[in-house]
Amino acid sequence: MRYSKLFGKTKLTTPHDSDSVNAKYLTQAGFVDKMAAGIYNFLPLGKRVLDKIVQIIREEMNAVDGQEIAMPALHPIELWETTGRTKTADAILYRTKGAGDKDFVFAPSHEEAVTPLAAKSVQSYKDLPISVYQFQTKFRNEPRAKSGVLRGREFGMKDMYSFHATEKDMDEYYERVKQAYLNVYERCGVKAYVVEASGGIFSDKISHEFSVVTPAGEDTILVCEKCNIAQNLEVAIGKVHNPENPEEKELPMKEVKAERGPSIDESAEAHKVAPSKVLKTVVYALSGGGLIGVCIRGDLKVNEHKLAHYLGSEVRPASKDELEKIGLVAGFISPVGLPKVKGGLKHGAEVGGDEKDVKEEKHGKTALPFVADNSIRDVKNFVTGANKKNLDLVNVNLGTDFTIDDFVDLVTVDESFGCAKCGSELTETKAIEAGNIFKLGTKFSKDFDLHFTNDQGKRDFVIMGCYGIGTTRLVGTIVEASHDEKGIIWPVSVAPYQVHLISLGAQKDSEVNTAAENIYEALQMAGVEVLYDERDESAGKKFNDADLIGLPLRIVVSSRTLKEKSVEWKLRNETEGKLVKYTDAPKEIIEWVHDCDCSGAV
Amino acid sequence: MRYSKLFGKTKLTTPHDSDSVNAKYLTQAGFVDKMAAGIYNFLPLGKRVLDKIVQIIREEMNAVDGQEIAMPALHPIELWETTGRTKTADAILYRTKGAGDKDFVFAPSHEEAVTPLAAKSVQSYKDLPISVYQFQTKFRNEPRAKSGVLRGREFGMKDMYSFHATEKDMDEYYERVKQAYLNVYERCGVKAYVVEASGGIFSDKISHEFSVVTPAGEDTILVCEKCNIAQNLEVAIGKVHNPENPEEKELPMKEVKAERGPSIDESAEAHKVAPSKVLKTVVYALSGGGLIGVCIRGDLKVNEHKLAHYLGSEVRPASKDELEKIGLVAGFISPVGLPKVKGGLKHGAEVGGDEKDVKEEKHGKTALPFVADNSIRDVKNFVTGANKKNLDLVNVNLGTDFTIDDFVDLVTVDESFGCAKCGSELTETKAIEAGNIFKLGTKFSKDFDLHFTNDQGKRDFVIMGCYGIGTTRLVGTIVEASHDEKGIIWPVSVAPYQVHLISLGAQKDSEVNTAAENIYEALQMAGVEVLYDERDESAGKKFNDADLIGLPLRIVVSSRTLKEKSVEWKLRNETEGKLVKYTDAPKEIIEWVHDCDCSGAV
Repeated sequence: MRYSKLFGKTKLTTPHDSDSVNAKYLTQAGFVDKMAAGIYNFLPLGKRVLDKIVQIIREEMNAVDGQEIAMPALHPIELWETTGRTKTADAILYRTKGAGDKDFVFAPSHEEAVTPLAAKSVQSYKDLPISVYQFQTKFRNEPRAKSGVLRGREFGMKDMYSFHATEKDMDEYYERVKQAYLNVYERCGVKAYVVEASGGIFSDKISHEFSVVTPAGEDTILVCEKCNIAQNLEVAIGKVHNPENPEEKELPMKEVKAERGPSIDESAEAHKVAPSKVLKTVVYALSGGGLIGVCIRGDLKVNEHKLAHYLGSEVRPASKDELEKIGLVAGFISPVGLPKVKGGLKHGAEVGGDEKDVKEEKHGKTALPFVADNSIRDVKNFVTGANKKNLDLVNVNLGTDFTIDDFVDLVTVDESFGCAKCGSELTETKAIEAGNIFKLGTKFSKDFDLHFTNDQGKRDFVIMGCYGIGTTRLVGTIVEASHDEKGIIWPVSVAPYQVHLISLGAQKDSEVNTAAENIYEALQMAGVEVLYDERDESAGKKFNDADLIGLPLRIVVSSRTLKEKSVEWKLRNETEGKLVKYTDAPKEIIEWVHDCDCSGAV
Repeated sequence: MRYSKLFGKTKLTTPHDSDSVNAKYLTQAGFVDKMAAGIYNFLPLGKRVLDKIVQIIREEMNAVDGQEIAMPALHPIELWETTGRTKTADAILYRTKGAGDKDFVFAPSHEEAVTPLAAKSVQSYKDLPISVYQFQTKFRNEPRAKSGVLRGREFGMKDMYSFHATEKDMDEYYERVKQAYLNVYERCGVKAYVVEASGGIFSDKISHEFSVVTPAGEDTILVCEKCNIAQNLEVAIGKVHNPENPEEKELPMKEVKAERGPSIDESAEAHKVAPSKVLKTVVYALSGGGLIGVCIRGDLKVNEHKLAHYLGSEVRPASKDELEKIGLVAGFISPVGLPKVKGGLKHGAEVGGDEKDVKEEKHGKTALPFVADNSIRDVKNFVTGANKKNLDLVNVNLGTDFTIDDFVDLVTVDESFGCAKCGSELTETKAIEAGNIFKLGTKFSKDFDLHFTNDQGKRDFVIMGCYGIGTTRLVGTIVEASHDEKGIIWPVSVAPYQVHLISLGAQKDSEVNTAAENIYEALQMAGVEVLYDERDESAGKKFNDADLIGLPLRIVVSSRTLKEKSVEWKLRNETEGKLVKYTDAPKEIIEWVHDCDCSGAV
């Protein structure tokens, strides 16, 4: 392709409203063009990248026996009413009226299409398993489209749906697809980890996300390189290093005067113990009203996301006023000696609303439900506050001196923790979610009566899985993961062209022109994808454009290089170029391309 | 692909609501599945056909320097308001509301997207010409979806748009695309003709349709094989064979008694002349009210579609009552001796509405505007009615004995006519419209201020062309054009698989199974696309399925063929099979595939 003929050239300036690296570079380099918020044109360069990604995904889905189909985007609303998603997905549905005043939605997902479709094919267990996928345009009325092509209102997606007779078959297939997804990212030149989806460790819904590592990612993940898995920081579980002596004997609790500040460190110092020996107690206010006490080992932090998930309510630390109102003293709070809530705590459900169990009792203090992180279970002889200003308790022991209504994992995990599985070191890094997979169970099968006769001759519902990768989003993700201050650095497998051929001063110097044209022709004959910048522009302009566009190999032909009977050879991800004999150049370029993993090339 | 694993198998029965051959066969054979009226799922077989068609089109569009892009389907309504098409295309637009209560349309076409996009790239004549295309899903709220995948509400389309500095460049490019379109149809295995679009010969809009010949086509076309062009019967022009002696002298008109029936033939017989010597006069009623007289040579028929187009109004022959009301006698009407409409006829505009010029005048008859087909110009000494029962006029001559307000082409052309260009024979055939191309001029450029600086340094509007092929429609068109009573007959280039391999009685006979598996493996290794029916079904069921699905080459392995050390080889479009040595079979199949024009294969 001659650059002078290409539709969609580089722009001198960054788009004024670009809110991300991918929006900035993809637009400025001529890969995409924004039509409206969250709605993008893909120009020839961008379309080529997208096509290569699509082809890589297609090959990997075929390798796990996926069969490609194409389902419509326009769905009669009855399908969505059947699953209840006209309500649960109401906010993001684009709706329309068709002929005969009929209601339709433009599909943000295709369970409502694929399930009734499968029901027409599946009768017996012999018809299972089946896996079908498509590359489709999805429409989601996002309240706020952002981050370039990362979060669009109209976007490309590969969605696959699988159908199984047994849980075992579902589970095995799920693992195969998980590996296929990892292959996709690897072949697209980015490092991805399997991540337990947000809330996944608490909920019954089984799903995984795939996170691509990039410095500007919107998520923070903790990676175990040994297990090759990652967790979202918000929900991560980890191995708490136990600093305690398990042989330690319980000592009798006693009150000690403590003129100290309110922090854990100040408490530890006052009593000459490690912070891990301090019983930290934080009181939280629930969004619906009501308070709850949370205990955790002094050296650990409460993960408010986990707490909120456990309680089914947003939470915030209680204010000083709120504490004083129920007779508690900030910095000296502990569950010891406080009145109990009648009947205990039932998984957050009773917290907040119902006041009848929260009565004024001894010490004039209000009864407060208490939950604790598991980390306090193994510590003996805690130091903690006595619920009075400047009065502490030492040798406080769980069960002996206080009780807790419920134990749960509430710890904020960071790099200092070990992997919960293997104990190895965890690494914290920024990432972008680039795909997800779900075990759907029989939710949609039941909605659409997708049943089959099992090998016992009995009627059963089909077990479903679904698997999504945003294709246009992946274009942006790769840019986020692979760029520098000059522009994009495309992995060879998804680069729109493999080679950026530049002639300098060709108009004035027919020798340069002939040499560059010869190389262009030789590469094209060999099937090498070349972008040939033959414009009458300065070297600076051409080099800047090449860096911005980011093709893997740059070849420069100029009178300077030809004096050495050479061309300049420079990889986009290296700083130094080298000279290669002009006569050898085509052969060496062809060999280089051949040696690259260009298996994604179409 | 093993047929037992394929998603979307043949069905025993025809879908109850299939209104066309393509709907019937594509559904029954498992290529498509109807989700709602005009909205189809493409199953694996159908998707493969679609992909091959897409790839053929892609190659042809690339060959005319088209650059592939992808534009969004969801357009802010402001774009459509700019072109006025929110009004002119109102009936077919799907509309929706997005975040922030913004209005959007789902695009039935992409001029509104591509023109502002081009405006961002085009500054100078040096940036022109440009041609961009996409494969996109179009949404059209058709009042009545019909004919399977031929007329859908959601359908696939390749649309290309070209941008030019001069009319000359536009015209040259238009001809290149016309040829590329013909290449597409030829490579897809169907015969297509370039057709002057309906109304094209009268209107200023320059456009062409491409019609694929099929017995059940909704259009009737007249083909000149020599010029390789076709015309829609409704608007066809042709060379009228002139049966007249141009040397004939005008004779004086005279009245003759004529006790005859009302037809032209009866008039010709009564006066012993050829029907072409009879001046036929038909009175038409316009949809808005009003009447008009139309003269044509007696052996020709008035084309009401041409008349309606000329008048800008629907027409129907006037009733006997209407004729009597203005004093005319059915069967004896002629323009001779009738009062003239004051000021004559202005291109249909004054007809019908305005009564002030239509006055009772001599003979107590109403003044009537008259138009005539050009065919009456060269005939001398017509025979015609005298506007009285059983009274005729002979030796009636245009100019001498009557005048006409306007001359226009109003003749119904059929096979008896010659080609208007070369005079050769015309052939009438049924066809389906399978693509169209338009010269858009500067309509959209002006709407979106798409201008450029021309080579004289002056500001000019870009000249645009657009070019569409319905891809999903083409799947259906091919089926309409290529099938028999048993099922589809796919052209090799677009067949989902090239070979249908069938094993018979394989479960019981391991020799058959081994032989079939060996062939399957050998073909797959060689990259031959094989559908392998290894099910435990009867020969009848398997043969019927193979005929219905319609792959080009059927190979049968059975104990009967193996007794002859052979397999059966049968082409779908031939009735007789033959035996081929088992050991030679893979090699011969591979050679056959190689020799076929499978250039569309993906």
